[in-house]
Amino acid sequence: MSFDSLWADLAGIGRDGRRGGFSRHGFDDAELTMREWFVEQAGRRGLGVHADRNGNLWAWWGSPGPGAVVTGSHLDSVPGGGAFDGPLGVVSGLLAVDELRARGFRPARPIAVVVFAEEEGGRFGVPCLGSRLLTGAVDPATALALRDPDGVSLADALRRAGLAHGDVGADPSAVAHVGAFVELHVEQGRGLVDLGAPVGLASSILAHGRWRLTFSGEGNHAGSTGIADRSDPMLPASQAVLAARRAASTVDGARATVGRIVPNPGGTNVIASTVDVWLDARAPSTSDTRAVVDEIVRAGRQAAADEGCELVVREESYTGTVVFDSVLRDELAAALGGVPALPTGAGHDAGILAGQVPAAMLFVRNPTGVSHAPAEHAERDDCLAGVAALTTVLEHLAS
Amino acid sequence: MSFDSLWADLAGIGRDGRRGGFSRHGFDDAELTMREWFVEQAGRRGLGVHADRNGNLWAWWGSPGPGAVVTGSHLDSVPGGGAFDGPLGVVSGLLAVDELRARGFRPARPIAVVVFAEEEGGRFGVPCLGSRLLTGAVDPATALALRDPDGVSLADALRRAGLAHGDVGADPSAVAHVGAFVELHVEQGRGLVDLGAPVGLASSILAHGRWRLTFSGEGNHAGSTGIADRSDPMLPASQAVLAARRAASTVDGARATVGRIVPNPGGTNVIASTVDVWLDARAPSTSDTRAVVDEIVRAGRQAAADEGCELVVREESYTGTVVFDSVLRDELAAALGGVPALPTGAGHDAGILAGQVPAAMLFVRNPTGVSHAPAEHAERDDCLAGVAALTTVLEHLAS
Repeated sequence: MSFDSLWADLAGIGRDGRRGGFSRHGFDDAELTMREWFVEQAGRRGLGVHADRNGNLWAWWGSPGPGAVVTGSHLDSVPGGGAFDGPLGVVSGLLAVDELRARGFRPARPIAVVVFAEEEGGRFGVPCLGSRLLTGAVDPATALALRDPDGVSLADALRRAGLAHGDVGADPSAVAHVGAFVELHVEQGRGLVDLGAPVGLASSILAHGRWRLTFSGEGNHAGSTGIADRSDPMLPASQAVLAARRAASTVDGARATVGRIVPNPGGTNVIASTVDVWLDARAPSTSDTRAVVDEIVRAGRQAAADEGCELVVREESYTGTVVFDSVLRDELAAALGGVPALPTGAGHDAGILAGQVPAAMLFVRNPTGVSHAPAEHAERDDCLAGVAALTTVLEHLAS
Repeated sequence: MSFDSLWADLAGIGRDGRRGGFSRHGFDDAELTMREWFVEQAGRRGLGVHADRNGNLWAWWGSPGPGAVVTGSHLDSVPGGGAFDGPLGVVSGLLAVDELRARGFRPARPIAVVVFAEEEGGRFGVPCLGSRLLTGAVDPATALALRDPDGVSLADALRRAGLAHGDVGADPSAVAHVGAFVELHVEQGRGLVDLGAPVGLASSILAHGRWRLTFSGEGNHAGSTGIADRSDPMLPASQAVLAARRAASTVDGARATVGRIVPNPGGTNVIASTVDVWLDARAPSTSDTRAVVDEIVRAGRQAAADEGCELVVREESYTGTVVFDSVLRDELAAALGGVPALPTGAGHDAGILAGQVPAAMLFVRNPTGVSHAPAEHAERDDCLAGVAALTTVLEHLAS
């Protein structure tokens, strides 16, 4: 099966007519269709496929066992996301298996292609939810109680998807099978463009997390409530958005973003009673990230006090700086005949696994660097170069 | 039928478990249930009930005809709104008819109780949509093309509700039947509390309108996009929120509010590509209102330029200052034995009709002044005083 045919399979699943691009979120109809497609593809290849207790899908070439060489990524997207972030890694994994078989390769270790659940956190708020559960980085009871914007809990979503949820949580024996994990991913920046390279390796991931800032004031009528009588949480919420930019600008390599804000009740002629602001903050180190968040919260709290409002802050997820295993990286760079290594600001399942197993990432060049948007792109030739590189890497590791 | 029994009928319709209060929007399930209730109540009273070509419901005591005395209000709410805004006027109209009949009153002119559609504009964005269509204040083609947040057009919503929409638009013969319109409404401020009066009359309504500010930037990844490479429309959108407060603070009696803001695509780890900000602005005069809006737009445009973003502004609705007919108001005040008159910042169907027929409003005391929120309230005794006042007014006008 060619890259073109697999890619075409996915092009119609989860299109978002309103936002553009794709909206495929953990265990929703679109993502479940993507998962069915994966199970079918694994079946066609005679790979043994199963969902683990956290809803991640594993397709095995050979029997699951220690020392396995595992590749894969995710099939969910951000709201209105691009086609490549996630699916490119899964499709490339399947094609690398095809290529190895076509070559008559006999792996000395089992090989698996994995699909992690809810990597973007687009539905339940916690990114890399599947890999965090697998590795014990998130408490299962907390995770099962997470709710999507419609109030559906993860427990309910798993049940509706026909997945058991009774034993969600850390799965040390599954992790112990992973000898090495290599995730292929579209680059989310212009690093490879600047270097003139179609493929590279990841060196590190910024420390990053998500915080939910809930500003509370007094809901009232937008027309009959005088300015002096207001406690309008939209004011401090807006100040927090501006503070995020200011705070990130003062720390080298830091980013702070508000891409999601929800006033309640959300009527045009209604002063909001509460406003939820989701803050995404990242920096090279944990201390830098904490400093940025602390400054934004300080400014938000001051602005809230000035307006007679209150602010409650909840950390929804946090991951410290990831430095990928340098021995594995050097080994893969050598196997690939020398490819550049780049840092990234984007979180990945490979970053979560890196805390427990040797992990690496392959990046495929992105002509504009745009990601998490419909304009996200990789040229077909670069995608094929990615498949070739992943094939080489799996062959090397499984020999 | 008592006030308590009618009020209890409505208490369970359109409860909003997430926001609190009620969410009943034009032609949605909750509002259609409210309308069915009204049709049934009119039927029990032997009133001739029909929907006009714009989806407003009219219940007639006597044959529709010139010189009619019309009362009523609306049954829709803002998202997460209170119980009283709208329904109190409809319930009071029905009870006033009951009371006049109990007295054996024989009206010399026809009396009607009317339910206007989508008064809050909570679904299609244009407030007083039903009365604007009726009076020709909004273009029918423009109105039919309005879309709700799910993309459903008004034309589709009318069709789904079983209402014809082929001849939506100005209905001069219906308007010509209205000899006087009197709307009873919960007060949306503390004016009557301060005056120690359970009931008052409206003197005027602030000029007011809604503007949609669409900020466009470049959607991208929140982690991998450096601060210097961003065109994030959340920044100028937040500046516009702050500018609204500043601009309104400089003009006596002005209000400017952002209660609804929608970033697209709206992911936590996604820099938005566009942000829609709905501005509600009001002031004593049109020139003051325009000056406030112009200043907010100027600040928003400057902030957009600073961020490499663009701003498109659309006026979604506008109503100039309404001064209610002083002859009618004085006549009603005298019939009621002297009640105070108050201005309001809130728009009403009575304000739309005031441009074409003699119109008046009765306000019922609101202990906290809160409106458009679950805390909106009127004491039972004050509601009964409102019914009594409306009964007196209808008797006076229809004699």
